[in-house]
Amino acid sequence: MKCTKCGEPAVVPIRRHNAAFCTEHFFEYFDNQVQRAIKEHRMFTKNDRILVAVSGGKDSLAVWDVLLRLGYEAHGFYIDLGIGEYSKRSTEKVRNFAAERGATLRIVSVEEEYGLGTQELARKVRRPACSACGLNKRYLFNKVALEGGYDVIVTGHNLDDEAATLLSNVLHWNTGYLARQAPVLEATAPNLVKKVKPLFRLTEREIASYCVLRGIDYIVEECPMAKGAKSIQYKHILNQLEELSPGTKAAFFFGFLERGRQHFEEEREQVEIRPCTVCGQPTTTEICAHCRMLQRAGVAVAGA
Amino acid sequence: MKCTKCGEPAVVPIRRHNAAFCTEHFFEYFDNQVQRAIKEHRMFTKNDRILVAVSGGKDSLAVWDVLLRLGYEAHGFYIDLGIGEYSKRSTEKVRNFAAERGATLRIVSVEEEYGLGTQELARKVRRPACSACGLNKRYLFNKVALEGGYDVIVTGHNLDDEAATLLSNVLHWNTGYLARQAPVLEATAPNLVKKVKPLFRLTEREIASYCVLRGIDYIVEECPMAKGAKSIQYKHILNQLEELSPGTKAAFFFGFLERGRQHFEEEREQVEIRPCTVCGQPTTTEICAHCRMLQRAGVAVAGA
Ligand SMILES: [Zn+2]
Ligand SMILES: [Zn+2]
Ligand SMILES: [Zn+2]
Ligand SMILES: [Zn+2]
Repeated sequence: MKCTKCGEPAVVPIRRHNAAFCTEHFFEYFDNQVQRAIKEHRMFTKNDRILVAVSGGKDSLAVWDVLLRLGYEAHGFYIDLGIGEYSKRSTEKVRNFAAERGATLRIVSVEEEYGLGTQELARKVRRPACSACGLNKRYLFNKVALEGGYDVIVTGHNLDDEAATLLSNVLHWNTGYLARQAPVLEATAPNLVKKVKPLFRLTEREIASYCVLRGIDYIVEECPMAKGAKSIQYKHILNQLEELSPGTKAAFFFGFLERGRQHFEEEREQVEIRPCTVCGQPTTTEICAHCRMLQRAGVAVAGA
Repeated sequence: MKCTKCGEPAVVPIRRHNAAFCTEHFFEYFDNQVQRAIKEHRMFTKNDRILVAVSGGKDSLAVWDVLLRLGYEAHGFYIDLGIGEYSKRSTEKVRNFAAERGATLRIVSVEEEYGLGTQELARKVRRPACSACGLNKRYLFNKVALEGGYDVIVTGHNLDDEAATLLSNVLHWNTGYLARQAPVLEATAPNLVKKVKPLFRLTEREIASYCVLRGIDYIVEECPMAKGAKSIQYKHILNQLEELSPGTKAAFFFGFLERGRQHFEEEREQVEIRPCTVCGQPTTTEICAHCRMLQRAGVAVAGA
């Protein structure tokens, strides 16, 4: 197998593009895909202050790495979810990554913030752990970004994530979600920070290769709470389709962006977003879902 | 396992309805699903003359059987595709079925009609066999229905067929197809006959059970030309999803009919349908695709 660009031995095959690259040209390809995503979807510029939500996994560390290399002002934000060994090891990976690069890293600990970890919190409010965790993350991303004066929040969502979410939305015909699924979630209210996904053109496998070749030490295992999650099943299904017909995943998600999504535009509800009366964060209800969860858990909520 | 209706031993489990039925109540369920499809989608009434496209497989024989039992005027129409042993055995199954019930059966042989079988025809025009075959079928269904004065054409498409087609349409975002996929294809031109799918609420497995329990002798193997077809892969994928979460298939297709399809309405092109200048059958071009295929194959075409 030879590099499509230079003819040297290739290390990364990319079947959907009918290509293969040596390390150098794989990096070029990878950066190009990220830059194309940033530019085509007007995610941010060199003038923006960027907050990268990092988990210690391959996706978020890869995107942070690319943005730092390309000269963006990208600070990391890590939430220590307090999920036993998994969180301890993730924290370590993220700290090491930032230290090696002299990058700015903000850390919030769920246990310090609320007095209890994600699992305890979920148990107290009788919610699935992933649901409580998602609520915490969305809340903290926006709060920390707002308070820190960031223009945009970057997440590590990749093509596999987006295709799996799309498959779920389509299997259930969640037309409201279909209207909103995109690589850019605009700030539709004054205290809501824009969210973007610069890795949406790259697959999990490509991102893992990137980390290995760049020597990025990431936490390999998925969050132990996510075992058996539907999203993992959908990814497995999409990988089977990809095996049978390389390019299926990209055609599915990019085709949606080009030809499918527009048909659901009208479903994007024009809901009024206003500040939560307890915490001041944007919400569509009087008290935001996050504050309601904390109240139910008996945790004192920080005032606006 | 006991019958959900009567408590007697059940023979057919229906996981997506969390039910199981004895033979008697399975037949009741089956008929109800067909009648619901016919009524909710205004497919036809007892006053209509119905042409059932039969292949000798379980789906088309099952739907013909139900319609005859329910007292509809349903004649069979069989196309002998001239695909070796497969066609010989199919013809036999269909003839026996009709003879046992004293039902009217029309047969057209592709070899007699064109002087060559489906495979030879496909080879001559350098088309995939399934594509040539589909063209032949669509053409002959409409022609025979029109000439015989039928009000509607019934096909045996089931829930698995429709869900697989939908998955394909969604994976490729074929928005034009998404606009048109439905259990009823209305007659949008004077010489176009309405087509309906009364089995779209029932799965392949349920239809196979119906045939076994009713003693309907059908040809089990798929058409040998269809081996490795994409539709079979999509059915396999959907069956995996169904295993993980019973009801996925039905929720996917019925959800599309209820909430998805309407979003593609505008894509239903307002194309002008007019008679083919060679054969007189409805087409959007001057000479229909079927006549063009026959011309390329050097087969004399019957005039309008
Ligand atoms: Zn190279
Ligand atoms: Zn709040
Ligand atoms: Zn019973
Ligand atoms: Zn014609």
